[in-house]
Amino acid sequence: RAIAAKPHPPQTLAAAAAGATSTTRKLAAMAGNREAFRVAVGNTLERRLFYVPSFKIYGGVAGLYDYGPPGCAVKANVLAFWRQHFVLEEGMLEVDCPCVTPEVVLKASGHVEKFTDLMVKDEKTGSCYRADHLLKDFCKEKLENDNTLSPQKEEELNHILAVLDDLSAEQLGAKIKEYGIAAPDTKNPLSDPYPFNLMFQTSIGPSGLSTGYMRPETAQGIFVNFKDLYYYNGNKLPFAAAQIGQAFRNEISPRQGLLRVREFTLAEIEHFVDPEDKSHPKFSDVSDLEFLMFPREDQLTGRSATRVRLGEAVSEGTVNNETLGFFIGRVYLFLTQLGIDKDRLRFRQHLPNEMAHYAADCWDAEIECSYGWIECVGIADRSAYDLRAHSDKSGVPLEAHEKFAEPREVEKLVITPSKKELGLAFKGDQKMVLEALEVSFVSTLTCHILLLLCWPTLKFLR
Amino acid sequence: RAIAAKPHPPQTLAAAAAGATSTTRKLAAMAGNREAFRVAVGNTLERRLFYVPSFKIYGGVAGLYDYGPPGCAVKANVLAFWRQHFVLEEGMLEVDCPCVTPEVVLKASGHVEKFTDLMVKDEKTGSCYRADHLLKDFCKEKLENDNTLSPQKEEELNHILAVLDDLSAEQLGAKIKEYGIAAPDTKNPLSDPYPFNLMFQTSIGPSGLSTGYMRPETAQGIFVNFKDLYYYNGNKLPFAAAQIGQAFRNEISPRQGLLRVREFTLAEIEHFVDPEDKSHPKFSDVSDLEFLMFPREDQLTGRSATRVRLGEAVSEGTVNNETLGFFIGRVYLFLTQLGIDKDRLRFRQHLPNEMAHYAADCWDAEIECSYGWIECVGIADRSAYDLRAHSDKSGVPLEAHEKFAEPREVEKLVITPSKKELGLAFKGDQKMVLEALEVSFVSTLTCHILLLLCWPTLKFLR
Repeated sequence: RAIAAKPHPPQTLAAAAAGATSTTRKLAAMAGNREAFRVAVGNTLERRLFYVPSFKIYGGVAGLYDYGPPGCAVKANVLAFWRQHFVLEEGMLEVDCPCVTPEVVLKASGHVEKFTDLMVKDEKTGSCYRADHLLKDFCKEKLENDNTLSPQKEEELNHILAVLDDLSAEQLGAKIKEYGIAAPDTKNPLSDPYPFNLMFQTSIGPSGLSTGYMRPETAQGIFVNFKDLYYYNGNKLPFAAAQIGQAFRNEISPRQGLLRVREFTLAEIEHFVDPEDKSHPKFSDVSDLEFLMFPREDQLTGRSATRVRLGEAVSEGTVNNETLGFFIGRVYLFLTQLGIDKDRLRFRQHLPNEMAHYAADCWDAEIECSYGWIECVGIADRSAYDLRAHSDKSGVPLEAHEKFAEPREVEKLVITPSKKELGLAFKGDQKMVLEALEVSFVSTLTCHILLLLCWPTLKFLR
Repeated sequence: RAIAAKPHPPQTLAAAAAGATSTTRKLAAMAGNREAFRVAVGNTLERRLFYVPSFKIYGGVAGLYDYGPPGCAVKANVLAFWRQHFVLEEGMLEVDCPCVTPEVVLKASGHVEKFTDLMVKDEKTGSCYRADHLLKDFCKEKLENDNTLSPQKEEELNHILAVLDDLSAEQLGAKIKEYGIAAPDTKNPLSDPYPFNLMFQTSIGPSGLSTGYMRPETAQGIFVNFKDLYYYNGNKLPFAAAQIGQAFRNEISPRQGLLRVREFTLAEIEHFVDPEDKSHPKFSDVSDLEFLMFPREDQLTGRSATRVRLGEAVSEGTVNNETLGFFIGRVYLFLTQLGIDKDRLRFRQHLPNEMAHYAADCWDAEIECSYGWIECVGIADRSAYDLRAHSDKSGVPLEAHEKFAEPREVEKLVITPSKKELGLAFKGDQKMVLEALEVSFVSTLTCHILLLLCWPTLKFLR
């Protein structure tokens, strides 16, 4: 098994395994009750020091966890396997960038402006809550426990749950007012929702004048190094770069155990490819894999995920291109070889409203656990958005050129957007339309893998 | 070779090695000139993407570096070997704690109050400098280039260089005034020196009320988990815990390439031992090792480091105890197996003024490189200082108990310090005296290893 490929302190894993037998029996008895099962597994993992709340002797900090000896052993094995499976087997270029990041980088990437959640405050105590969580909890509670709901009301609440992620601050605030939602702990009135940036802010150097943030993802470190990496790769496309490292998100109210934490290890891959040729020479290696896929259409029409051959999904156009398909296949192999049950693993396509406007296609690997189907890997064709953003901000062109074997002279009819006309027609949305019209020179395929210890350990204790 | 135990992308290391041959010849030619040699090696390593300044397309940030593909391969190998050599072979308990740390933890450890460097500001531009660096540079420059110096003056400057680390803000400020030292770039006058805390500060959670810092070392995560780890170890001493992870220091003016950076990977071990029995069952495994040692007495009397058998150094009392000796031996094996030239490696004992008042003994592994002899590993017997500090602050007793085979009744004559008398005699120093008098219950042996990429790569290109 890949996960056991490296030796680890025998006493730690063996001790955990020995103790697990009787625990497993107890857990099996309560497997019918998800909530009780989760609590029991959580307690067991904590008692055996797989993970514990950080700084416990000082009362802990929400959303921060330590891994103890068996947790570290699992993490080291997962990372070693990730590096083997992706970086070494595919010849990717690994980089290792600092967590401390100057503001200009995250302004270019859009994080300073847009990496926010909507927050409401208890008007008396100042306690903070995520506005969408409060509305979601309210709707769910009503739907589950209120027998007097009219069919119309029921439909309304279900509709809110469906479009929750799309609601603006004003819409969320209006709903919270309309339903009379108060602070959960005190029942005090709540403020209007306002955006809270999720990045940990700091200051670089002694002057106090240079703002920095703890990176919210590792991908930006790859993008800003594109030029050097492209040169390192002999000025040839395609190539992929990878990074494993800490990422930081100052969540408003962390919950769901290890699933939403304020600091975690991310493993990310950015694959740079010619936008006019997204074929992949090794796609045939994975095209015969068959697994649960959940395309956009099935979600919108209320069907459930079905087993599909990957080759078919690409040839039928469900998956946008071969390169994207190749990564879906490699992620499937990675997860199942790690020990994920293939019946609890599906690839779900993003709905149009979930995707950024520049993205061509996006699939999440979701794993069914006691919290439901949880996104653990995101695979996106992001077009050249990030490279273009850093080119614009830094003035350093981040682009790739193809040299033909013979010089060619080509006459091309090029349709140039008239900015004036576009401005009249689209007004504020003009920039977005322009970007969508531009032909991207390098497409980026992002593959974010969130390393969640719960995978292997849950499997292990099941 | 241990460093090649894990497979890595063949093209990256092989390509670097192939290119290195001609480079090596050029470098050998300038080996006589340290400065030119260093610049040439640095340029080569940058060009080959071992490391590059971070965020280069935005002009970079002083003290932040990225590792490129070959740098990542070296780092992964070094870390895998470290884990193998220390954690797995010695059955240590590994932990993995967050970088974001609440203020209370670093108040207890003393970092909030004392983790500072003395800084001066250019009074016109606001540029910041380390006060001791300016004074040091001034003294060195005078000693090297001023032929008119009187013997007295020469002695004075040499004395300043020797006691530089002990100078207070007032003393530093007085010397800077006396010598008329101005801002290096502008020649403007300088402010008085004042302490600047080297931790990156941030805020945890949305309220803005909870101060946090990016950890300046990984050791505190081990100390706050002592109780759980002791329990995990079957409530038995001795045991060791280890952590590998990022550490952050907001240096005033980073210099010396990778040697003084603002973010780096630390690998630390804390070995917890009965203070009344610091023997080590495996000391005989390392007692016959012979290598360069530089004890306190030799430094003070102007002698140089000599080759000593480790067993002798312990039995003669040069090294305080067997456990400390065991770690010195293991670090020697680690470094030489990594590829460090044993003639450029010495263990230097701290002088009394370098050690914290609670430390029993302290040795640094120093490696001679183009910057001179550089501390790369610190090995200290810190007594129970850290555990006591966290016990006091948190109210959770972090202590160990020994159970005798038979119950024993012991009559002991205990000399109890009279706080009143001590207060009269020692005034402000009373607390320090009390701490020194207290019998420590658990002694901590710290083994900090700074992972510097320059080791293997320098060896590799030499």
